[in-house]
Amino acid sequence: MGSVTVYGPPISTAVSRVLACLLEKDVDFKLVNVDMAKGQHKSPDYLKLQPFGQVPAFQDEHATLFESRAICRYICDKYADRGNKNLLGRNGAGPAERAQVEQWLEAESQSFNPPSSALVFQLAFAPRMGLPQDPAAVELNQAKLAKVLDVYERRLGESRFLARDEFSLADLAHLPNAHYICSAGKDDMFASRKNVARWWEEISTRLSWKKVVDMYSAPPA
Amino acid sequence: MGSVTVYGPPISTAVSRVLACLLEKDVDFKLVNVDMAKGQHKSPDYLKLQPFGQVPAFQDEHATLFESRAICRYICDKYADRGNKNLLGRNGAGPAERAQVEQWLEAESQSFNPPSSALVFQLAFAPRMGLPQDPAAVELNQAKLAKVLDVYERRLGESRFLARDEFSLADLAHLPNAHYICSAGKDDMFASRKNVARWWEEISTRLSWKKVVDMYSAPPA
Repeated sequence: MGSVTVYGPPISTAVSRVLACLLEKDVDFKLVNVDMAKGQHKSPDYLKLQPFGQVPAFQDEHATLFESRAICRYICDKYADRGNKNLLGRNGAGPAERAQVEQWLEAESQSFNPPSSALVFQLAFAPRMGLPQDPAAVELNQAKLAKVLDVYERRLGESRFLARDEFSLADLAHLPNAHYICSAGKDDMFASRKNVARWWEEISTRLSWKKVVDMYSAPPA
Repeated sequence: MGSVTVYGPPISTAVSRVLACLLEKDVDFKLVNVDMAKGQHKSPDYLKLQPFGQVPAFQDEHATLFESRAICRYICDKYADRGNKNLLGRNGAGPAERAQVEQWLEAESQSFNPPSSALVFQLAFAPRMGLPQDPAAVELNQAKLAKVLDVYERRLGESRFLARDEFSLADLAHLPNAHYICSAGKDDMFASRKNVARWWEEISTRLSWKKVVDMYSAPPA
């Protein structure tokens, strides 16, 4: 243990997805900042870790990896016996239970992420970067996200969490984008849907996620 | 065996991704068409299988699933001892080898799929649906895809396939979108890059994929 390194700024949604997973799994890690304003993510050394020039990158003694959701799966598989043991379904429960998590993790990736990432950029990052907000993009993506949340509302009426009656990687993967959207004054998208509101309250108050949010304002040295 | 059912038209890229995986794994299946022109994907019965009203849906005796990449992972996990046994890394090779496949499968999902899906729509499906082509969308997404293929070109200079020196689910996942783009006259995007060209020639001539392409023109009754 102790040899896990994550590269990237914790305010990045993809970086914080990995941090939330490591905290759930009780895996110690070192966070190495990548100063994207200075273009460090496009430097030759960094491109050896992450060929697309994106964050995060991840290293332990056995693997150098990119793509937040692939890294999260690896953390769950590699550290199967540490921390939260059921993030990909219960150990030994078999492929069908893992697949329930995988399908909702893919729903996050394919259906929730595109409009929510666009909203995060418009509502949270564009203002920080001094860029003008595009009201048409906000409206379009808010409408797309609303349709996804309508499906979630029905699903969460029959299941406590998205994949199962237990918190999983599928729920965890939503935390970063949803956090920024709620913090930027669009929390009504979640609060106005009864089951989504209950789910969001439950997942966003987990100790692991609170620690990540603390790192947004006070990243470790 | 024999109880596997896939719902959806084989000309759908997401459906054909699942079919390619089943053929690689030598798993028998029944294909049930979903007539999207008639709105069958939005019918109450179909929404019980696929709550977003998309294709494909998948059923066997243990699971009802949606999302093509989640279904492919499940097929590989469930039928680990059938057909191509190394699509998610070699059985028993451990989490780091599976993670190499996962990171390039996520690269497909996050980097290759968005611009290539937009191109497939513009180049292949819009004409079939009698919709006008949007030249600006073609140009924008072709430029985005070119940047992704530049990263692939470097990667495929050091590795025979994307994840490993062996064909994996990460390669397979690219077949449907790449097929439509090449068939629509944009094959130069692949052919003009030496390593990408070699890779595309090798993966697109696999017997499993040829069978899927045959189903595009003559879907089973």
